[in-house]
Amino acid sequence: MELLDADFVTTDPAILETYRYDQAGFCTAGTPLALARPRETAEVARVLRFAHENRIPVVPQGARTGLSGGANAVDGAILLSLERMDRILEVDLDNHTATVQPGVINSVLSRAVAEHGLFYPPDPGSWEMSTIGGNVATNAGGLCCVKYGVTSDFVRELEVVLADGRVLRTGRRTAKGVAGYDLVRLMVGSEGTLGVVTEVTVALRPSAEKPLTALAFFAASRDACTTVSEFLGTGRRPSILEFMDRPTVEAVSAYRDLGFPPGVEAVLVVQSDRGAAAADDLEAFAKVARSCGATEVLVASDPAEGELLIEARRLVGIALEKLGDRLIDDVCVPRSRLAEFVDGVAAIAAEYGVDIPCCGHAGDGNMHPNVVFDGSDPDSVLRGQSAFDAIMALGLRLGGTITGEHGVGMLKRAWLETELGEVGLSVHRAVKRALDPLGILNPGKVVRLPGVD
Amino acid sequence: MELLDADFVTTDPAILETYRYDQAGFCTAGTPLALARPRETAEVARVLRFAHENRIPVVPQGARTGLSGGANAVDGAILLSLERMDRILEVDLDNHTATVQPGVINSVLSRAVAEHGLFYPPDPGSWEMSTIGGNVATNAGGLCCVKYGVTSDFVRELEVVLADGRVLRTGRRTAKGVAGYDLVRLMVGSEGTLGVVTEVTVALRPSAEKPLTALAFFAASRDACTTVSEFLGTGRRPSILEFMDRPTVEAVSAYRDLGFPPGVEAVLVVQSDRGAAAADDLEAFAKVARSCGATEVLVASDPAEGELLIEARRLVGIALEKLGDRLIDDVCVPRSRLAEFVDGVAAIAAEYGVDIPCCGHAGDGNMHPNVVFDGSDPDSVLRGQSAFDAIMALGLRLGGTITGEHGVGMLKRAWLETELGEVGLSVHRAVKRALDPLGILNPGKVVRLPGVD
Repeated sequence: MELLDADFVTTDPAILETYRYDQAGFCTAGTPLALARPRETAEVARVLRFAHENRIPVVPQGARTGLSGGANAVDGAILLSLERMDRILEVDLDNHTATVQPGVINSVLSRAVAEHGLFYPPDPGSWEMSTIGGNVATNAGGLCCVKYGVTSDFVRELEVVLADGRVLRTGRRTAKGVAGYDLVRLMVGSEGTLGVVTEVTVALRPSAEKPLTALAFFAASRDACTTVSEFLGTGRRPSILEFMDRPTVEAVSAYRDLGFPPGVEAVLVVQSDRGAAAADDLEAFAKVARSCGATEVLVASDPAEGELLIEARRLVGIALEKLGDRLIDDVCVPRSRLAEFVDGVAAIAAEYGVDIPCCGHAGDGNMHPNVVFDGSDPDSVLRGQSAFDAIMALGLRLGGTITGEHGVGMLKRAWLETELGEVGLSVHRAVKRALDPLGILNPGKVVRLPGVD
Repeated sequence: MELLDADFVTTDPAILETYRYDQAGFCTAGTPLALARPRETAEVARVLRFAHENRIPVVPQGARTGLSGGANAVDGAILLSLERMDRILEVDLDNHTATVQPGVINSVLSRAVAEHGLFYPPDPGSWEMSTIGGNVATNAGGLCCVKYGVTSDFVRELEVVLADGRVLRTGRRTAKGVAGYDLVRLMVGSEGTLGVVTEVTVALRPSAEKPLTALAFFAASRDACTTVSEFLGTGRRPSILEFMDRPTVEAVSAYRDLGFPPGVEAVLVVQSDRGAAAADDLEAFAKVARSCGATEVLVASDPAEGELLIEARRLVGIALEKLGDRLIDDVCVPRSRLAEFVDGVAAIAAEYGVDIPCCGHAGDGNMHPNVVFDGSDPDSVLRGQSAFDAIMALGLRLGGTITGEHGVGMLKRAWLETELGEVGLSVHRAVKRALDPLGILNPGKVVRLPGVD
């Protein structure tokens, strides 16, 4: 087959093996046919034309830092890695936009525009590794979404290679525009199931001021959740507002002693980047936190001290890794239901006999309970999976969604069907069929098609 | 036919006649079969089921304040007015959302939430008349988009009656969510061609502070455009940043003497609602404006005086109405191209021998050149239409879009095809067919389907 001889394609099994998985737990991966690593749009189009003609599945991949199996191989597929398309094509200083290839790492873009006094806000936990293309595919969020929004709020224009290899340009570089359907937003978050993004123009903002940071400690997680609601109710717009429960704090403290006071049941981390008004924001936060029962509030006196305070939040990922195997959930609930959600997660942990350290973007109601289990013990695995499912059911009961920012991939396909309901699922399938009639784009991910997947 | 006997349906020709048009110029309207004014979703679904079974076109309507003919009748259609579905269902004070039926007037919602210290930012010029459903259908913008974004940035959840009468709930009430495709954003701005919106949940913000206002006068419109770019380049975020050219200022002055200095070629109106920092924003604006050649800058000393200054911008619509028949264009360009756009519009006015007062949301690059002509003079009409087209061609040449916020409707269908290109048009048609296979939803609007429209 002609494509397989192209210089950007390999069928070496040893290389293929290293590209089979993203970072999700509990997701299988098939055996791929080949790995394509194109350097330009024309090569991506060539892959898709070939795949379309031969009805071969195509699995687009970025840095494979995803947490839902969206980039996992399927049997007989061409893995289409965009990692070599890693050029920043333009930073438009007049109009505050940047145009990049999909393989540009988030932090590379962020630092490149920062040199010009500009700011690309979406900051997923993976920002030092994940690509803009992957961020677009999953509509990635992050810590500063609470003030600035998620990836889709910043994407203006896309170049997308369609299932049959045609190249679509959609959206626009202007600040506003309503010419036709919003295909940009349809593509963002579609996890490679509707097209392959080959160029992205994002909006930038002028750099924010250096943030100030505070920590608040609580003897009850409910008090921390009430603080979130009441503080945001004042109209203040923190640039970060994060929650950590006791098991999370214990894991972090075990990894590095941060000198936290004893008896802490919950911690909130808050930042404001409003320059001269930031100190006032944190004072207002401290007042609300104390009135809600905070046992102690630490306000950093300058940005450098703030960096030390936020270290606690930054260490969560690595600290939790030490605990065992993990399934990271990603439920988002209305923020008025946060306390019920946190209590519910604790109850689920007790019910299934697993640890579930819970942290997350409390200002958005987007929480990450980490179900910890022993992957070598089938019973522990089963209890972990059951707890993971129970958390999503709890999120839906509280008026939330099964995924705030990690995406559906393979991990949450069945739960997506529950969340969407019959009519929603049928519209999803109609849209999928309209853009990918042969079902070759990342099959089995997000929306399953009867008779295809 | 059973539906026509329903108590919410009329076939009275005198009533039908008053529902045939929206406020667009140069758009024809057909003769409708009936007018349905349902009070609840079940009645909307009944209309769609009937229309689907009998392949009858359905034209959804809000307050018919649109400027593109999107709500105009087509022959044999059921006009589906949502005006009676005008209840505010919930204002969620904890989570800062409001849930409304589509017929709620924008200003009614805005005032209702303001009583609770909340703010619904999208503020199209028609906000005292237009409905939230219509705003959703056209993805309406307004003056404060420059800081707060457009309608789609605020819509979280929709109930939509599909072409076949099934009821879809899509989106979510949470701040974030990536469960499935973004059907909410697909529906917003689709002008009733993909479904009929019957319930809308919007995000609210805490009320902004009372704004401060400034006016800057320029002897050359280019200086005003440079001021826009340079001021936004400083990173300030004005809540309003509007442009008026000399013909616009003359029309306003003829309507009401505002005591503007003589020899004004352009005016910028700027507001900041940053409370204690607003005065600082306006001082920064004044400094930039003067350095760009402003002949005079007036800064209001308090919000009440600011209201007087912004009166000039508010009077534009009524003042221009006095000049004759109008075709209001709605091109959006990258803001670095504003000066070229304004100069280009002046050149088009000279070339076609028509007046084209030009004003608009300069901070977004979204301009409204008003082509003035004499509707009783066929030659004047022809020159007006040609100038209108030339303005869109100019916008596209400058990297812009044919419509920033008014939508495509009937008025810009041909130009939409130019802007989308062949692949973009084909994807639009595929999406349209996926959601409305019989082509009964607002046929002939936005995207024309070969063999149907």
